[in-house]
Amino acid sequence: MVIDKKQCIELINSHKEFIVLSHEHPDGDTLGCAFALCEILRTMGKKRAFMCADEASEDFSYITDGFENDDVKEPFIIAVDVADARLLGSLEKVYGEKVDLCIDHHASNTMFAHNTYIEDRAAACEIIFDLADDLGYKSNEYFRNCIYTGISTDTGCFRYQNTSARTFRIAAELMEQGIDSKTINKLMFETKTKSFLELERLARETLEYHFDDRCAIITITQSMYDESGADEHQVYPITALPRQIEGVVVGAVFKEKPDGTYGISVRTDGDVDASEVCARLGGGGHKGAAGCHPKCGFEEAKELLLASIKKSLDGLQK
Amino acid sequence: MVIDKKQCIELINSHKEFIVLSHEHPDGDTLGCAFALCEILRTMGKKRAFMCADEASEDFSYITDGFENDDVKEPFIIAVDVADARLLGSLEKVYGEKVDLCIDHHASNTMFAHNTYIEDRAAACEIIFDLADDLGYKSNEYFRNCIYTGISTDTGCFRYQNTSARTFRIAAELMEQGIDSKTINKLMFETKTKSFLELERLARETLEYHFDDRCAIITITQSMYDESGADEHQVYPITALPRQIEGVVVGAVFKEKPDGTYGISVRTDGDVDASEVCARLGGGGHKGAAGCHPKCGFEEAKELLLASIKKSLDGLQK
Repeated sequence: MVIDKKQCIELINSHKEFIVLSHEHPDGDTLGCAFALCEILRTMGKKRAFMCADEASEDFSYITDGFENDDVKEPFIIAVDVADARLLGSLEKVYGEKVDLCIDHHASNTMFAHNTYIEDRAAACEIIFDLADDLGYKSNEYFRNCIYTGISTDTGCFRYQNTSARTFRIAAELMEQGIDSKTINKLMFETKTKSFLELERLARETLEYHFDDRCAIITITQSMYDESGADEHQVYPITALPRQIEGVVVGAVFKEKPDGTYGISVRTDGDVDASEVCARLGGGGHKGAAGCHPKCGFEEAKELLLASIKKSLDGLQK
Repeated sequence: MVIDKKQCIELINSHKEFIVLSHEHPDGDTLGCAFALCEILRTMGKKRAFMCADEASEDFSYITDGFENDDVKEPFIIAVDVADARLLGSLEKVYGEKVDLCIDHHASNTMFAHNTYIEDRAAACEIIFDLADDLGYKSNEYFRNCIYTGISTDTGCFRYQNTSARTFRIAAELMEQGIDSKTINKLMFETKTKSFLELERLARETLEYHFDDRCAIITITQSMYDESGADEHQVYPITALPRQIEGVVVGAVFKEKPDGTYGISVRTDGDVDASEVCARLGGGGHKGAAGCHPKCGFEEAKELLLASIKKSLDGLQK
């Protein structure tokens, strides 16, 4: 059931124990949401526990360090920034059908939760920021750092088209009240480890073009992690690269998983719908950024993706 | 003479003909300021002409295209975002001592102009934006695009530490009233030409470390322009790269000029003062980003810079 903000507030107010779920391979927005929400719940005197299929990257330790789950017995289960039960990863089996409330900003949300509160915002953290006010929460710097993390990472630091006047106003408020943007920006956008630079160099060598150079693809293999010393947590900035090349309207990055299948990140310039491209392969996301994970090897996955991209490109010309 | 905002407004109101000067190798902020100011002057019924020692990059054609200088006879001369008369480049000889008003945000401004209106802002375009209000100017999208260009480029799209709550609020206002952030962000931050990618690849191969990897240096030579097909206008994004490497506190990029001398861009993490490092070589700028242009060859320039960096690093440890 789709619910509105007031109903969402009521659901939170009327429960005492919570489990907050982030999506697998957690990024800044899902973590920012989850820990900001946990912080609100804590100050409301409620019990809360956080769960996620995968461990968060070290880079987010300023969010996750020192957090300890409360002991929750009959929890109300909230998923944040989770568009599909499958994105709960290994937690899907246990929680997939038990999510009481999903707070999300993905138009592609499958409404898997009993209640879904969805807003068309740049980041799910914008929604949590607004909810905080209505829950009577008075923010501290930790909370504001969580929100800023989600907003800045999901907008490519205010660069992507999802950035709105509202996004900028929230950033202004956060800045005014005090955030550690210096540390966060440095970690999220400024710092390149030597291993990342090497991974990027290796990845760039795989760059290939299709459809008159309107599509560019980069592939990252498990052996590149070994060679560079980098790991999959460090891949994120590379996912933007193919689309950034002049003339490219669809960029894709194939990321080999340990089992030999490939997660695919698709980025588009907005004319081509990335979520449509990925939906044909069982994935989803936003218009400009989406993903999918076909359970097959590289050549087959690439063939499937190129066929899907071709459909979308052909659609453009009509 | 240092003047305040009211005096600045009076000077503009009391003159009829203007020349607006940008600094050499014009960037988004000096161009945004100059063309936004010219747009204000135009709607005030005043005559204005724009001058700059160097041609603006093609990327800024959405700002410069279609602009035509008025015929000005006894102009009041305004320099925008120009911290030093020397930064007028080849125009210094004619205008260096004739600048009636300098509107700037550099703490290192040498006060070369007859009147200097200076504010500690992320971008000089923030100052022009505020002046516009007091001049009774009602903005159009062209003006807003100019202001957004200056603000977004001088803050690395809201990523650098100079970004303030005020910066975000101006961005929110611009966004609300309508700007073409899609085109501007794509041009300024998203698009990488194939020639740029090749230049970046070549430049990265020159990466060298000093002072226990706390300093990283990249060198770009004239022959790299030939080999990649890129030109010096495309170098800007590379200037940030050395400083972005984990553990690096001072990054420098040496850019060979056609005469064999090297312009040097220095970026720091804020603990080391980049303007201090560059001042010792006759340059200047901000705490986190500065530049200099010693009139010598590579080895000598590098020796000078490393000695200056060493001084600043030694100062840190005291």
